[in-house]
Amino acid sequence: MISPAIEQLMKEHEETMMIPAENVANVIKEHPLEHALLLLSQAGYSTIPVLDKEDHFVGLLSLNDIVKRMLGIDGIDTSNLEKLTVADVMKTDVSVMRLDAELEDILHLLVDAAFLPVLDQEGVFCGIVTRREILKAVNYTFHTFERKNHETKLIFHANSPR
Amino acid sequence: MISPAIEQLMKEHEETMMIPAENVANVIKEHPLEHALLLLSQAGYSTIPVLDKEDHFVGLLSLNDIVKRMLGIDGIDTSNLEKLTVADVMKTDVSVMRLDAELEDILHLLVDAAFLPVLDQEGVFCGIVTRREILKAVNYTFHTFERKNHETKLIFHANSPR
Repeated sequence: MISPAIEQLMKEHEETMMIPAENVANVIKEHPLEHALLLLSQAGYSTIPVLDKEDHFVGLLSLNDIVKRMLGIDGIDTSNLEKLTVADVMKTDVSVMRLDAELEDILHLLVDAAFLPVLDQEGVFCGIVTRREILKAVNYTFHTFERKNHETKLIFHANSPR
Repeated sequence: MISPAIEQLMKEHEETMMIPAENVANVIKEHPLEHALLLLSQAGYSTIPVLDKEDHFVGLLSLNDIVKRMLGIDGIDTSNLEKLTVADVMKTDVSVMRLDAELEDILHLLVDAAFLPVLDQEGVFCGIVTRREILKAVNYTFHTFERKNHETKLIFHANSPR
């Protein structure tokens, strides 16, 4: 169990913890793999969420997964990507979270994932929670905790008998 | 300033916070870029430290940086990598840290970097501190803080007058 005082401070960052779907680049699972490679490269991301045409989250596609498929016996060959779609290469065994997930669970899942896709009840992609955004909240909590702690101590001292 | 109680708990993880150099894949700056692409792809990393032949840290190379160089006007062409070395493509404007860096500074730098290369006084690469390892220490701290807080309260109650 996380200390309630700490959890309360972390939750002051709750609204900015999720990067909403409209600010996250994604690919559609039916798209050609070469198209996805161009998109990943241009966006500067190493991993990107994969959606179906109804915005349901279906997996993650990484630059590494694509490059591995380009490696043939004679080195790198982009012709190996022909006829492959995003769905052929994406990872589907992925940790995801609901909008109302517990902070404790989010923090544990983020040990093994750089970000968690956030889904609604119907599996529609709502956004991502990243290690980066969590770290911002942790920095705030670590600093504010000391200040709040001091304030509490000062009140305590002011009320205690001399 | 970080709360001393929190910093103390974080420091209980200090020894495991850095992944030592011998466990971190790296590339040498003189190496051909195609060789680096194969290495990154096989290791499954998206970004890798670049060293010189005397183990000094000189920059970071990402899969994205390489793929961007492969993009020609006719799409992806690996022949664009010929004659290029790691040094031609690596990023040198990179946040690094010393072995004795303050936790506060590390946490701030990790907001904008997935990991920090750790260098000694001579610039020799010692290892990396990652968001992942920091998050493990944060999880430990968030949980242990509550327990230690409870223990303190119990001791306080045991000694206070009835």
